[in-house]
Amino acid sequence: MITPRVLKGFRDFLPNVMIPKKTLITKLEAIFELFGFAPIDTPTLEYTEILLGKGGGETDKQIYRFNDHGGRDISLRFDLTVPLARFVSQHFSKLSFPFKAYHIAPVWRGENTQKGRYREFYQCDFDILGTKAKESDLEILLVIRKGLESLNAGDFRININNRKIINAILSKLNIRDKSVQVLRAIDKIYKIGIENVIKELNDTANISETESLKVLELLQLTDDTNKYHETTNDDIFALIEKFKAELGDEYQAEIDEIEFIFTSLQQMGYLNDFAFNPAITRGLDYYTGVIFESFILDRRNFGSICSGGRYDNLTGIYSKNVVPGVGASFGLDRIIALLEDKKLLHNAPTKTDLLIFNLDNRLFIQYQQLAEQLRDKGVNTEVYFEKKKIQAQFKNAENKSIHYVLFAGEDDFKNQTFNIKNIKTGNEENNIAIDEIIKIIKQA
Amino acid sequence: MITPRVLKGFRDFLPNVMIPKKTLITKLEAIFELFGFAPIDTPTLEYTEILLGKGGGETDKQIYRFNDHGGRDISLRFDLTVPLARFVSQHFSKLSFPFKAYHIAPVWRGENTQKGRYREFYQCDFDILGTKAKESDLEILLVIRKGLESLNAGDFRININNRKIINAILSKLNIRDKSVQVLRAIDKIYKIGIENVIKELNDTANISETESLKVLELLQLTDDTNKYHETTNDDIFALIEKFKAELGDEYQAEIDEIEFIFTSLQQMGYLNDFAFNPAITRGLDYYTGVIFESFILDRRNFGSICSGGRYDNLTGIYSKNVVPGVGASFGLDRIIALLEDKKLLHNAPTKTDLLIFNLDNRLFIQYQQLAEQLRDKGVNTEVYFEKKKIQAQFKNAENKSIHYVLFAGEDDFKNQTFNIKNIKTGNEENNIAIDEIIKIIKQA
Repeated sequence: MITPRVLKGFRDFLPNVMIPKKTLITKLEAIFELFGFAPIDTPTLEYTEILLGKGGGETDKQIYRFNDHGGRDISLRFDLTVPLARFVSQHFSKLSFPFKAYHIAPVWRGENTQKGRYREFYQCDFDILGTKAKESDLEILLVIRKGLESLNAGDFRININNRKIINAILSKLNIRDKSVQVLRAIDKIYKIGIENVIKELNDTANISETESLKVLELLQLTDDTNKYHETTNDDIFALIEKFKAELGDEYQAEIDEIEFIFTSLQQMGYLNDFAFNPAITRGLDYYTGVIFESFILDRRNFGSICSGGRYDNLTGIYSKNVVPGVGASFGLDRIIALLEDKKLLHNAPTKTDLLIFNLDNRLFIQYQQLAEQLRDKGVNTEVYFEKKKIQAQFKNAENKSIHYVLFAGEDDFKNQTFNIKNIKTGNEENNIAIDEIIKIIKQA
Repeated sequence: MITPRVLKGFRDFLPNVMIPKKTLITKLEAIFELFGFAPIDTPTLEYTEILLGKGGGETDKQIYRFNDHGGRDISLRFDLTVPLARFVSQHFSKLSFPFKAYHIAPVWRGENTQKGRYREFYQCDFDILGTKAKESDLEILLVIRKGLESLNAGDFRININNRKIINAILSKLNIRDKSVQVLRAIDKIYKIGIENVIKELNDTANISETESLKVLELLQLTDDTNKYHETTNDDIFALIEKFKAELGDEYQAEIDEIEFIFTSLQQMGYLNDFAFNPAITRGLDYYTGVIFESFILDRRNFGSICSGGRYDNLTGIYSKNVVPGVGASFGLDRIIALLEDKKLLHNAPTKTDLLIFNLDNRLFIQYQQLAEQLRDKGVNTEVYFEKKKIQAQFKNAENKSIHYVLFAGEDDFKNQTFNIKNIKTGNEENNIAIDEIIKIIKQA
C-alpha cells in the first residue's frame, strides 16, 4: 500500500476552499472583461533558456528544471510575466495593440516553505501592452480599485510610486548611477528605519549622509511618525508642487506622470483609495515607471494583495520589437487567506441549494424529473441515490451545508405540490408548488 | 537574442481560442453545479510512486518525471483519475459521501505529437464517489446528456456498455478467465472487422471459432451492416429480453443494471440520445461496470467527446477504505476542434462590447467616467488611450471585432447624449442617452 500524501509546499483544494477561490477568480475575470481585457494562456513548461533569459537571480535556484524525453532543457514557469513577454514577441504580428490581456494560472517555485508560502501557487496578472500612454497606467489603477472594492473586505489603499521620480531626484543630485542601491535601501525603510537606510547607502554606494538625507527629504521619507510613508489626499498635490520647485522644468515630464494620475483620481472621486508612497520600490529590475502595491487597511500585515507597475522593454530579449507595457497581479492565495482571517469566506463544501430525499426507490425517476425542472430554473439540486433512513439523508444535507431538503411521496407527485424544510431554521413548508419552492430558495 | 518559441506539443492560447475555451468550461461547470458536483483541485506535481502505482503501462514511458531540489522522485500528473483516488483516500474522513466532485485541469504526457494531440491538455472530469447505487450511474449519464445538449452542436448519441454483461456471457460460456483478451479484441471490431476479431481470439486466448461466434452473437456483434454496433430505441429492450433468456436467473443482477438505465432513460424521454453498444469496451483496466462513450453524429470521426464508467476499487492502492465510484470526462480540446470544424465557434479576440473613441485628450476622464457607468450595467467597455487619428481608432475596433464604437465631444457630455456606430452594419445612432445605448448593445 502507498501512503496517500502530497509533496511539501503543495496542497489539495477541497470544495470548501476551491469554491471561494473560484468565486474570487470569476469576480476578477468579470472585472477584467468589463475593462476590455481578454484571457490568454501559455504552456506551463517552456525551454529553460526562454524562462531564465540572462538569468543570475534567485529564480535560477528556485526553478523546477529538468530534461524531457527528447533531452531538451525545460522548466516549469516561475511567473507569468516572462511567458507574457515571450508570447507578445512571438505573436506580435497577430495582436492588435494596445493589447489588453489577463492570465490566471499556477506557477512553481522551489522555495523554502513557510507559513502561507507554497511551491505551487496561482498568479492573476493583467497587462496593457503596446502603449506608453499615461492613460493606460491610470486604467490599471482603476481596475485594481474595482477589484479591491469587489472583495468587500473593508477599506483599502493603493500605494503609488514612480521610478522616474526617484531617478529624477538622483539625477538632480548627480548620483543617478547609484539608482539600484538607493531603490534597494529605500525598499527596507519600513523594516530597518531611516538611520539604517542612511548607513546602508553609505556602505553600499558611498553616498554621504548629507546626500542621503537630501534624497530622503525630497521623497518625504524623513518623517518617522508616518509609519507607512503614505502621502494622501491634498498633501499629494503639495508634494507635487514641491517636486516642481526643487527639480525644475528639466523633469517636467516625470512630474506630469504623477500629477496626471492623482488629478485624474481626484476628478473621478477616488482619491481616498490611493496614496503616493515613495517607500514602495518593488524588487524587480524590469520596472521603469509607475509602480504600485495595495493593502486592506486593517490587514496590512498580510502585505500587498495587488502589485505591479510599468515596464518599458520586457520583450527586448526575444525581439527587435520594443513593446512597452503596464500591468499588475492580484495575489489570490493571499486574498483568500485574508478573507478567511476576516471570516468573510462562505466556505461550504457544496453550492447545492436543495437535496431531494429518496423516500421510495420506485419514485427515483420522478425525483430526478422534479430535479430537472428545478435545475432548469437555476436551482442547484441533488437527489439522494438510495432509500436510506431519513436520519442518514438529513445528516448528508447537514454535512454538506445544504440549506433546503425536499420530501415527496406518490400523492405529492399526483398533486404536484411538495414539502421542503430549511435545515438552518427548521422551518417547514408543506404542499407547495414548484414555482413557490423556486421563489423561496432564490430568496434565501 | 533568444528566439521566442514554445516546445513541440505545447501551445499558446490567444484570446480568440481562449475565450471559447473558457465559455465551454463555464457552461460545463454550471451544469456540474446544477447536479450538485463541487470543484476540487490537486497539485500538478506528485510523488512518482503515487502517480504510477503498480506501473507497467504506457504511462511509465510518457510521464514527465524528474528529481526536485530535495532529490525527491516527482512527476507531473498524466490524468486526473489517479490524483482523485489519492485525494479521496487521503481526505476520506473529511468528505461526506456520496462525494460528487468535478476537476478541470491540465495534464501532461510526453506522447509522440500528431495532429490534434498535445503534450499538455485539459481534462474535465466529474465523478460520484462512495456509492454503488445504479442511480448514480444514471445520474452521470444525465449530466453527460445535459452537457452535450448545451453544446448545440447537433444530434449526439451516448453509447453505453457494461463490463459485467460481457463477463456474465463469458462466465456462461466458461471462458471468464479470458476476459482481458476478449475485451481487447472486441475493442477493435470497428477497425478490423468480425473475421479478424475471431482470428485474434483464437491466437491470443485459444478461443475456438464456435465459442467466439457465440460471444459475438450474444453481444449482437455479428451484423456487419450495423457499422457502429449501436442498439437503439425499442431494440434495446428486445436485447435485454434475449440476455434474460440466454443467461438465466444467475445473472439477473447484471441484466438489471442495464435494464434500469434504459427503462429510466425511456421514462424520462431521453432514449433517443442513447444506445447500447457492446463494442465499446474502454481500454483502461480499472472499469468494473457501466462504461460509455459519446459522439456527435455528424462528426463521429472526431471520436468520443465524453467517456467514462464505473470503477469499484480505485483507492485500494492507497487505503483500506474501498471507495466505489462512477465518472466521466469531457474532452475539451476535441470539443473545441469539433465546434471549430462545424463553424460554431465565435472566436473574436475580445469580449468588449463598446469602444469609446478618444477625440480629445482633455475629455479622457469623462470618457472613463462614461465607461464606468456602462460597466456598472454590465457593458464591457474600453476607452481608446490616445487621441490618434479616427481611422486608427476604427481600425482598432475592427481588428478586435468590437461591435460598437462611441464618439462624444464636450457638448455631448453637457447634454448627456452620445453617438454610437455599429461597426458591422454601419448604422449610426446620434444624440442618444446612456440607457438607450445600453439597451441597443444588450439586444445586439
